[in-house]
Amino acid sequence: MPRQAAPPSGVPGFRFAGVACGIKESGRKDLALIVSERPAAAAALFTRNRIKSPSVTAGAQNVRRGRLQAVVVNSGNANACTGPGGLRDAEAMCAETAGHVGIGAAQVLPSSTGIIGVPLPMDKIRRGIAAAAAALSPDAFQDAAQAIMTTDNGPKTAAASCRIGGRTVRVAGIAKGAGMIAPNMATMLCYVLTDAAVAPAALRPMLRRAADGTFHAITVDGDTSTNDTVLCLANGVAGNPRVTRGGEGEDVLERALTRVMKELALKVVADGEGTTKLVEIRVDGARNIAEARKVAFTVANSKLVKTAFFGQDPNIGRFMMAIGNAGVPVVEETIDIALGGVKVVRRGLAVGTRESAAARVMQRPSFTVRIGLGMGEARTSVWTSDLGHEYVRINSDYRT
Amino acid sequence: MPRQAAPPSGVPGFRFAGVACGIKESGRKDLALIVSERPAAAAALFTRNRIKSPSVTAGAQNVRRGRLQAVVVNSGNANACTGPGGLRDAEAMCAETAGHVGIGAAQVLPSSTGIIGVPLPMDKIRRGIAAAAAALSPDAFQDAAQAIMTTDNGPKTAAASCRIGGRTVRVAGIAKGAGMIAPNMATMLCYVLTDAAVAPAALRPMLRRAADGTFHAITVDGDTSTNDTVLCLANGVAGNPRVTRGGEGEDVLERALTRVMKELALKVVADGEGTTKLVEIRVDGARNIAEARKVAFTVANSKLVKTAFFGQDPNIGRFMMAIGNAGVPVVEETIDIALGGVKVVRRGLAVGTRESAAARVMQRPSFTVRIGLGMGEARTSVWTSDLGHEYVRINSDYRT
Repeated sequence: MPRQAAPPSGVPGFRFAGVACGIKESGRKDLALIVSERPAAAAALFTRNRIKSPSVTAGAQNVRRGRLQAVVVNSGNANACTGPGGLRDAEAMCAETAGHVGIGAAQVLPSSTGIIGVPLPMDKIRRGIAAAAAALSPDAFQDAAQAIMTTDNGPKTAAASCRIGGRTVRVAGIAKGAGMIAPNMATMLCYVLTDAAVAPAALRPMLRRAADGTFHAITVDGDTSTNDTVLCLANGVAGNPRVTRGGEGEDVLERALTRVMKELALKVVADGEGTTKLVEIRVDGARNIAEARKVAFTVANSKLVKTAFFGQDPNIGRFMMAIGNAGVPVVEETIDIALGGVKVVRRGLAVGTRESAAARVMQRPSFTVRIGLGMGEARTSVWTSDLGHEYVRINSDYRT
Repeated sequence: MPRQAAPPSGVPGFRFAGVACGIKESGRKDLALIVSERPAAAAALFTRNRIKSPSVTAGAQNVRRGRLQAVVVNSGNANACTGPGGLRDAEAMCAETAGHVGIGAAQVLPSSTGIIGVPLPMDKIRRGIAAAAAALSPDAFQDAAQAIMTTDNGPKTAAASCRIGGRTVRVAGIAKGAGMIAPNMATMLCYVLTDAAVAPAALRPMLRRAADGTFHAITVDGDTSTNDTVLCLANGVAGNPRVTRGGEGEDVLERALTRVMKELALKVVADGEGTTKLVEIRVDGARNIAEARKVAFTVANSKLVKTAFFGQDPNIGRFMMAIGNAGVPVVEETIDIALGGVKVVRRGLAVGTRESAAARVMQRPSFTVRIGLGMGEARTSVWTSDLGHEYVRINSDYRT
């Protein structure tokens, strides 16, 4: 897990709000606003599910120009499978927010998360946006993180800072997600904010690369939602020389973005519905990255592997079975597997004597499964959770 | 579910045995023999997992000539990930069986199922083969069905008969499998026997076609094992005019084979580890069969859909999410979904008022989810189970 930064409290030039407007029957916070004091460079990644929430459609449209100034998010209702009315509602959320904040509706990105197939309760949402706009504050970062939660056990935040051109630049993010977590986009919702000055043309590829090793490398249940969004806003308040593609500060800013996104992504897996384990599946010796990812995700999504994690059972048969099912021409005789440094398979054969040591590794809350394919030089890591009784309980009771 | 035939008791010209030789610590039956009184036409399908048991390798080698006379199966140990010693052990099982029965070793197909990564206990197996050979009887069909079980709750058998050229032809089969069930091959082990006279060149394509709508159309956990085998032996004892490719009797025999395999395949799903529901996912309106299967299997394997089955929750969001994740360019606005005849989605929108009727359908032990894509004419069905607490309990305790 990445080093824990100080509990993040916001980013200069951004105000936040998180209020309860009655979408959630529980009365918990369910509407969040994030507003920048000036137009910010913006880049986003959205779900690759063919069935998309109209909120995603509206957000993708607005982010296309590379500039945004506000984000409005409701939790408790996903505004998905809601037809043309759903698109009108998403646009109304933007217009309502824009009216209160004094910007254009096209400067707003809307997101929704929660139950699918039910129209948004727009009266409640209008009241919620008004209340949130009145409550906007640089100090309400944690309120916003709480207001985007659904089955999450707690708010997920992360922060980092770096120096660019003699200026201190801040990066902070909030995320939500605990189920329907799968690569392409892994989290349901994530907003990363920075006061760096960046050209939109530089921000987009930076966000894509940062996602590859973070939100595109995690899985809880292999199911990708209809609403997944990762957005980055950069408002330039830090006053650094503007970061351009290939220019000064690009690397250092990308590292800070990646650090924040990695911490948030791992928090999503660790908070996966009913999760008791956070497991890194590290594949090396693949012929190329695509094959490394296929093997890693087939292992990471196998129900039999994930129940073995829950059972803390160093069951090499399940790993070998899953590796063989990846659709990659693996060679049994060159496969090595280690659990937290304890070799359990060498050249395709069980290393039987190490089983109690391997079982002790699996009792840890977090460990690494290292799979060597012995075919080439490509490597990758993905992170997954176990599959236990709590997953079943939550997902047979909870209405998505 | 297909009509239940009379409890099958065997097929003319075949003898059976099922004995306990101590591979299973429980002392249950763990070694089965099936012997034909004369060389039989033979066809088989094997796992497409890249990691194969050496027993599969040896069996695939022996069946290639299209003639076999015996099958030897042990349960409790899969003989997988056992290296060159595993292949020697599989060949020794054939030789040992051949010696007792008085046939050539290449006339025997060996199968193993159970724990992976542990060498076969060959002393026990040799004693088991001797005991089974001594016990061979036309009446021990059920003993053989019991001896191939692992986590199965009970033996799985099915039978059918048909008329070819004025002769009555019998077909009967046994199967085992409850976990690691996924298409390409769905069951772990299945042996279908008939006294029909058939040319091997006719039997092979017949078995492949019969598997398409049966063992290739079921899933429990999406994990394909290292040992899956479906074998058909046809010994000709019925005395019918030999069935050839495209010749008389081909259709009627293929229908009987398919009926037996369908009944066995559905018994495998219904007995899936911890299963409380048997659900047919019927997709129509697809552009082609490949896309229909992609959608059907993505829905059938989704952990969120399967936990919704367990929770008896007509959660249209999970169906829509899974349909959108199939990698097929579906169109939200043309999707219809019905649960057991109760329409829950029409043109992509929830039909909210029917929810209590839909919930009642899901309380049944078996029902159909009908998904209309509205894109074309292709259709298919696959069968799946729910994902409940028992699945987790069995798979976090049981050592594969």
